[in-house]
Amino acid sequence: MTARFPTGFSGSAVHVGIKKMSTKEDVALVVSDRAAVGVGVYTQNLVCAAPVDFDRQLTPSETIRAVAINSGVANACTGQQGEEDCQEMARLTAEACGLDERQTLVLSTGVIGVHLPMEKIAKGISLSSATLANDNDALERTARGMMTTDTVTKIRGRDFKVDDVALNVTGLAKGAAMIGPNMATMLAVVMTDANVTMRDAHQALKDAVSETFNCISVDGHTSTNDSVLLLANGAAGGPVLSGRGLDMFRTTLFEVCEDLAQSIPADGEGATHLVTVEVHGCRTRAEAVKIAKTIADSPLVKTAIAGADPNWGRIVSAAGYAGVSFDPRNVSLHINAMLVYERGAPVKFDEQVVSQSMASEKEISLLLILDEGSAAARFWTTDLTAEYVRLNADYTT
Amino acid sequence: MTARFPTGFSGSAVHVGIKKMSTKEDVALVVSDRAAVGVGVYTQNLVCAAPVDFDRQLTPSETIRAVAINSGVANACTGQQGEEDCQEMARLTAEACGLDERQTLVLSTGVIGVHLPMEKIAKGISLSSATLANDNDALERTARGMMTTDTVTKIRGRDFKVDDVALNVTGLAKGAAMIGPNMATMLAVVMTDANVTMRDAHQALKDAVSETFNCISVDGHTSTNDSVLLLANGAAGGPVLSGRGLDMFRTTLFEVCEDLAQSIPADGEGATHLVTVEVHGCRTRAEAVKIAKTIADSPLVKTAIAGADPNWGRIVSAAGYAGVSFDPRNVSLHINAMLVYERGAPVKFDEQVVSQSMASEKEISLLLILDEGSAAARFWTTDLTAEYVRLNADYTT
Repeated sequence: MTARFPTGFSGSAVHVGIKKMSTKEDVALVVSDRAAVGVGVYTQNLVCAAPVDFDRQLTPSETIRAVAINSGVANACTGQQGEEDCQEMARLTAEACGLDERQTLVLSTGVIGVHLPMEKIAKGISLSSATLANDNDALERTARGMMTTDTVTKIRGRDFKVDDVALNVTGLAKGAAMIGPNMATMLAVVMTDANVTMRDAHQALKDAVSETFNCISVDGHTSTNDSVLLLANGAAGGPVLSGRGLDMFRTTLFEVCEDLAQSIPADGEGATHLVTVEVHGCRTRAEAVKIAKTIADSPLVKTAIAGADPNWGRIVSAAGYAGVSFDPRNVSLHINAMLVYERGAPVKFDEQVVSQSMASEKEISLLLILDEGSAAARFWTTDLTAEYVRLNADYTT
Repeated sequence: MTARFPTGFSGSAVHVGIKKMSTKEDVALVVSDRAAVGVGVYTQNLVCAAPVDFDRQLTPSETIRAVAINSGVANACTGQQGEEDCQEMARLTAEACGLDERQTLVLSTGVIGVHLPMEKIAKGISLSSATLANDNDALERTARGMMTTDTVTKIRGRDFKVDDVALNVTGLAKGAAMIGPNMATMLAVVMTDANVTMRDAHQALKDAVSETFNCISVDGHTSTNDSVLLLANGAAGGPVLSGRGLDMFRTTLFEVCEDLAQSIPADGEGATHLVTVEVHGCRTRAEAVKIAKTIADSPLVKTAIAGADPNWGRIVSAAGYAGVSFDPRNVSLHINAMLVYERGAPVKFDEQVVSQSMASEKEISLLLILDEGSAAARFWTTDLTAEYVRLNADYTT
């Protein structure tokens, strides 16, 4: 695991007062020193933020140079003014960095329905562009600039080699497990100095996201701003990746996305457990995902886990209303690798032992096994604590 | 509103120790003195309890005489033994009341995965059958016998007249708003002395349930045991209802179901608000229901309401991921009849006024207006409080 700015990338972030606490960076830039392939995967929410619409129009692209990011205000549900603010944010970035404005992508996260404070944004872009660097401090700073209620930065990276060319994939993400106030918006910017085509980059990102970022659930609420961007600038040199080299890139990208995705529910302010829901024995992966997501989103399951309560009935019955047909008589369930339900009937198990294991371990594993086929899926979520409710009950006012 | 045992019906309930508190009845009977039309609507959960399978096989019927009910144990996920216990419960009821066992329906609610304590059940049926009565005390007692974490009995009824024949529809329900420990299982038994055909009774019940009991949400978790039964014994006399008389019966049944359904989220132990979500301007009612349910199930919306936070962004964005296509630029939202979002853009409103109204009123109204058509739907739910989490974090252990 080597997280670093890949060759040709730099970044920075500053605090300009969009977020209240003066120690918290709220405007960040990621810049490539040459034109990069830029591809994105965006929220499925119909009510999407202005920056999502903006980036959707620009990507996929072969000439991206920068991503401008702000935290504190989401620029969502902001109408025509929101669109104009977005364009202005790109224009300011292009101006500060000497680019074309069509080379700049934009990300925002924060409260909904509030207009971007454009003077602060302008100041932030100007200051960030003047302090761009490619060292670890700059990487940490850039990641902090994306954060909302995250308690730690989420930076994951890997080196790999293709035909003696040293390559790197490094990503920055922000989540807010147990949703912070900010709609649980998930943003990620993944950078690589590998040389990949726009088409391969887009397919690799879509494939990775579907099994990583799309398999985390904090509260089932799809955000207006969720975006994952991948920038590939080829600065490490070497020919365009294909065949085995492309496979290695895809694998590395997947691993970085998986590490980042898992870091999001793991950083739950209100949460006390990271829960992995695995569903095996389905006809299709889509059906397995549907069941895993239904279990992961169930408040009854999540409160039981918060209370270290091995209440398998809630888990099995959540599977039953996922909208996937299966024979309930062939369902088995393991909690933390202990069999608690076997082929449709309860199993005698020591509730105290399972409960103590749930209470003492930060990571909880739920494994549901059907007997319909051989497809499987994995989902990550958190438990549901009273602290979550406290954090989310009062935000805008 | 006149809740009473309709002509020919009686009931009772006793405490036999299935529930711990000795003041809480846990076995109840509802008996008709003659064969009644019996129809039911049951949970959609694939993982359904033994009594649901049992009743599904017996209904619709024209010869039902009794419903045996226990609370404390759900007889769900109990395999072959559960099926046998169910049959035995019906047989015991038939024996005690002098009926055929195919004339007896069964309802259970409580913890999952635990076998029915059949000695206690037998004792409860015997004692209940010996104390059957048709007065208000017996009605209250019978309703208490269904309760789990409900804090009040849920009994609603109406008199109506068709051609000078006095008729009555009265129903008993149990919920557990903010789910109690019992999977939020919802049970209802509706009795009428009207003379309706099996087919009309079944259609009327299905139609009423789809807009009442199926439009309440406590936590989106479909229970293994949810059941609504309707018994119509014709004891009031008069010919089989048709035409206008049948319409009056359908209307009365609908109103009783609506009253009962609304009483469920209103009785939230952890809940501080009853929330009505109305969605107007949809292409179809199904789409309106889908959007209303998505809003009603969103933990972000529910925590905001608990905190009296007029965070309309959470509501609008929940609509956006409901899986229904609509133009977000034509969406407006009212909270407690105050416009906060109009045609895709925020409206200037006094957050303090809206927040105070949310804090001071027990009932919260959310009205989302689209511009896609003229279909509408209404959903009832509760807010999500820290108390909910406390109640649900530790149940079986």
